[in-house]
Amino acid sequence: MAHKNAFYAQSGGVSAVINASACGVLQTARKHSAEIGKVYAGRNGIVGALTEDLIDTSLESEAAIAALKHTAGAAFGSCRYKLKSLHENRAQYQRLIDVFRAHDIGFFFYNGGGDSQDTAHKVSQMSADLAYPIVCIGIPKTVDNDLPITDCSPGFGSTAKYVATAIREAAFDLAAMSATSTKVFALEVMGRHAGWATAACALAADREGSAPHILLLPEIVFDERRFLAKVEETLQRRGHCVIAVSEGIKGADGEFLAAGSKDAFGHAQLGGVAPVITGLIGAKLGCKCHWAVPDYLQRSGRHIASATDLEQAYAVGRAAVEFALAGSNAVMPAIRRLSDAPYRWDIIAAPLAEIANQEKFLPADFISADGFGITEAARRYLAPLILGEAYPPFKNGLPDYVTLQNVPVPKKLASSFAV
Amino acid sequence: MAHKNAFYAQSGGVSAVINASACGVLQTARKHSAEIGKVYAGRNGIVGALTEDLIDTSLESEAAIAALKHTAGAAFGSCRYKLKSLHENRAQYQRLIDVFRAHDIGFFFYNGGGDSQDTAHKVSQMSADLAYPIVCIGIPKTVDNDLPITDCSPGFGSTAKYVATAIREAAFDLAAMSATSTKVFALEVMGRHAGWATAACALAADREGSAPHILLLPEIVFDERRFLAKVEETLQRRGHCVIAVSEGIKGADGEFLAAGSKDAFGHAQLGGVAPVITGLIGAKLGCKCHWAVPDYLQRSGRHIASATDLEQAYAVGRAAVEFALAGSNAVMPAIRRLSDAPYRWDIIAAPLAEIANQEKFLPADFISADGFGITEAARRYLAPLILGEAYPPFKNGLPDYVTLQNVPVPKKLASSFAV
Repeated sequence: MAHKNAFYAQSGGVSAVINASACGVLQTARKHSAEIGKVYAGRNGIVGALTEDLIDTSLESEAAIAALKHTAGAAFGSCRYKLKSLHENRAQYQRLIDVFRAHDIGFFFYNGGGDSQDTAHKVSQMSADLAYPIVCIGIPKTVDNDLPITDCSPGFGSTAKYVATAIREAAFDLAAMSATSTKVFALEVMGRHAGWATAACALAADREGSAPHILLLPEIVFDERRFLAKVEETLQRRGHCVIAVSEGIKGADGEFLAAGSKDAFGHAQLGGVAPVITGLIGAKLGCKCHWAVPDYLQRSGRHIASATDLEQAYAVGRAAVEFALAGSNAVMPAIRRLSDAPYRWDIIAAPLAEIANQEKFLPADFISADGFGITEAARRYLAPLILGEAYPPFKNGLPDYVTLQNVPVPKKLASSFAV
Repeated sequence: MAHKNAFYAQSGGVSAVINASACGVLQTARKHSAEIGKVYAGRNGIVGALTEDLIDTSLESEAAIAALKHTAGAAFGSCRYKLKSLHENRAQYQRLIDVFRAHDIGFFFYNGGGDSQDTAHKVSQMSADLAYPIVCIGIPKTVDNDLPITDCSPGFGSTAKYVATAIREAAFDLAAMSATSTKVFALEVMGRHAGWATAACALAADREGSAPHILLLPEIVFDERRFLAKVEETLQRRGHCVIAVSEGIKGADGEFLAAGSKDAFGHAQLGGVAPVITGLIGAKLGCKCHWAVPDYLQRSGRHIASATDLEQAYAVGRAAVEFALAGSNAVMPAIRRLSDAPYRWDIIAAPLAEIANQEKFLPADFISADGFGITEAARRYLAPLILGEAYPPFKNGLPDYVTLQNVPVPKKLASSFAV
């Protein structure tokens, strides 16, 4: 294989450990400098490739690259931007080729969720159709855990640990207050269509009757009457009620309970269902409620990352480079579970064609019969993903995250490109 | 002093470290068993005294008591319940005396914020007026940090560390997303009237221009036009804007921006101002916004407690017992700052009469000239309070908090009492 430069970029909503995947890519590429030249990072994902806004990662110190492993956010900027298909927008792909050719890029590493794997897949198709040879490897990341084939998606385990920790702590709070004050607490959890993170809240319930008492999963149609009956029963038995509610729950009419606007992909932008359901409880059952919407905090909470998740995030970054060097193309490193307890896993190559635009929902046998909880099978699946603590270094009482220099690569093309 | 039993109770909203104060009380009392008999905890604060619902803490193991130091919530239950004055409700005080006499209680330790110090103060007045001798010591606790005299209130430092960590992490997230998606993030912070916790968010800004860019403090009247101009200016200079907003901000009409109901003290129950101000920004400036309301998470987040705060919480519990044994009465252990950096402090006795029903607001010289930030003086004050990490033990990937047995003390009174 000729000595080519590589392109790496981050896409979609960030996770607590996407920078650990970046670290895996960059450290592994540096070890293989005989085969890979410089790694150019796209500033703000694929947008950086289209606008020729590339970052020269070779100018970052070893220490700065190592610090990515413990740094929140997405160090090179991320994007919400979906490529159209080749026949819909040929110019976009021609532009990518122009940029890649100008910078002698022969490897394309794209780190993200379902939409991002679709981008990686389209770039690999373009490579064939437009006869520009480039090795395309997707790198999994999504706190929603909805990528197919892989046992889990890096980023999810840390969000799962965050929300399970948060709901346990809030439950201790509520239990203390409930005799004379608040009786219900609802935590709103991310996951537009798939209830993985909401389900993970149930890991906080380590004994009969402990919180959370009710999960509202997006896989189950919200039924006001059954829900209020369950809340009332819980209040009678426990004196208080802790609820984990997915941002994406819908009523029988198919509408989200949380009204919202739309993002660049045309997805509804959600948020605010927790006040809706606690408002309902307050009105119908007459008790005081509290609610929390952690929003970004649950996906960028690097301070409470899962060590297991962190290790996997690094591993898929490293494997992406190793797969590329071993001659694989149009694949994504996927995690394969070998055993539940102890959790053992390895990494296999999954074809991008089988991953792009697929969503993995909670299977029916992971959801309890009444729809408000999870089964033992779900617990076996989820439990190992939050194991281990991986605290970042702290400075002056706060997590000490690195900000890279992100020095731009001098442009070589005369033309610009509007995205 | 006669060998008497002690009453200890927790009151008001919990903090991440109120159980550390309980640990300080209980461990110190156990060391002085020659002078203090059993410590009976009130189940749900003063309500437990009124209803003769006492917990025999002597039945808890040394290990369980020690584990309180790392446990979220309020182990004996808290309450929102304010005693009326002696002349308004003499029966209530007579009942307290009946319960204390029946259980040979000669020490009253009450752990809470301003309302709780008022309760402790009233009990000490009752002791004199009704000629029932009881030593009354208040123990400070409030995440709002609004108690007077004491340098800070235990619980605040951990909330400050939580919100500053959260806003730093969310800011890394937002910075990565802002080129193609969300441009504004707002974190809603507790603090009904005093902006201490909102101000603490500014500790996350460790260099010129870093987030948070705007604080909305309850001490400053919200001015829509000035605020939107500041957001617009920040977006132009930084490309994104991170805002910490106090739940308690009010408009020029004196009304809270967040509509809400009222709690048992007649305080407005707030929550939901972050969606109000991001909705305003979206409507007026047309950019995509995210918001978070961590609510209980910020006051029960023991996993990210400040080691300094934890040490102080334990110390005020210990000092409460030591003051009582040294003959003090009607006082609260207060923290006295001796130096900023390194942070040195000791504990002095502050009269309850000077503490009850006082609120300490951000002083004018802690607020920047434009009202949207803090001064260096504020930073010097706040910085040491979040120093040090004090992680709880983890089990199965989650904080391992203790739940006490909380065995009730057999009732001795024939009568019951309705609260």
